[in-house]
Amino acid sequence: MEDVQGYEMAKPDLLRRLHRVEGQIRGIAQMVEDDRYCIDVLTQIAAATRALQGVAVGMLDSHLRHCVAEAASTDVDAGQRLSEATAAVERLLKS
Amino acid sequence: MEDVQGYEMAKPDLLRRLHRVEGQIRGIAQMVEDDRYCIDVLTQIAAATRALQGVAVGMLDSHLRHCVAEAASTDVDAGQRLSEATAAVERLLKS
Amino acid sequence: MEDVQGYEMAKPDLLRRLHRVEGQIRGIAQMVEDDRYCIDVLTQIAAATRALQGVAVGMLDSHLRHCVAEAASTDVDAGQRLSEATAAVERLLKS
Amino acid sequence: MEDVQGYEMAKPDLLRRLHRVEGQIRGIAQMVEDDRYCIDVLTQIAAATRALQGVAVGMLDSHLRHCVAEAASTDVDAGQRLSEATAAVERLLKS
Repeated sequence: MEDVQGYEMAKPDLLRRLHRVEGQIRGIAQMVEDDRYCIDVLTQIAAATRALQGVAVGMLDSHLRHCVAEAASTDVDAGQRLSEATAAVERLLKS
Repeated sequence: MEDVQGYEMAKPDLLRRLHRVEGQIRGIAQMVEDDRYCIDVLTQIAAATRALQGVAVGMLDSHLRHCVAEAASTDVDAGQRLSEATAAVERLLKS
Repeated sequence: MEDVQGYEMAKPDLLRRLHRVEGQIRGIAQMVEDDRYCIDVLTQIAAATRALQGVAVGMLDSHLRHCVAEAASTDVDAGQRLSEATAAVERLLKS
Repeated sequence: MEDVQGYEMAKPDLLRRLHRVEGQIRGIAQMVEDDRYCIDVLTQIAAATRALQGVAVGMLDSHLRHCVAEAASTDVDAGQRLSEATAAVERLLKS
């Protein structure tokens, strides 16, 4: 039985959500193309941003669970992975 | 001479940036598909979010200029439009 | 009759909200002092951040109204002020 | 030797940063009191928000390290704690 990547189990869900965000972005481009009222476009941009952050949170959750599971079952020092995770949260907060 | 929409002048630029974001999202989906390290995926999500917020700021800027130009040259009350703009900023900040 | 600053009318409200945020921050420091569970502290930090962003949105709203009123009634070019406002929104989104 | 709370070691640092944020908020209230230009006030609000998010990230980092250390050394299931941490990140992203 092969090893499972950190977010393997959630992969179909992550991909589904990313494809939906991709569709949202395409819809926003179409709205601009059609000269739709820009406040409506901004509302859709906010929705797409929220959806993208949702993907990030889901991915972060899987990563942290993976780190903890690893720390509990092996000798691997999870410290470095956690530093990376915290730095990733920092980048998300600034984006 | 036809009337010009609020963000008409910046439209090619907005579309170019939106298509680039769409490509970024597709790239992120591919990274997930390829089981890339999730911290790297998170970094790309932060970058795409930033790019999307950049589009929002560009669009907001055009909208505000349009409101002000309108207020200066016509009798239209710009108050309602500004309330919409402020509400849009609020939604972006919460996204 | 004296001239009115951009956010003059909302000043008591802005100050009230800022004093409340100041109290929230003091409360958070007290929670840390008392070794309260850090997830609870994080919840309070999120609430204080939201309150602070609310002050920013209120202030931005007044500023934009002022710009528009000025553009409608005087010869002042509101373009520079709007650029400043857009840049301020950008900084808020990145914070 | 007494047990150490999750963020105990970083406590003086967290408190120092929180007191600085409190000072920033007080400074912002004074700027409003003095009718300072609102774009300058918004710049300071963005700076205070960033500082507050920095405290949150520092606190989250300690919490995660604590969870992982606990998971590695005891039988405690860290799953619940991680769910709380992820939910906290979500609230921060929406604030």
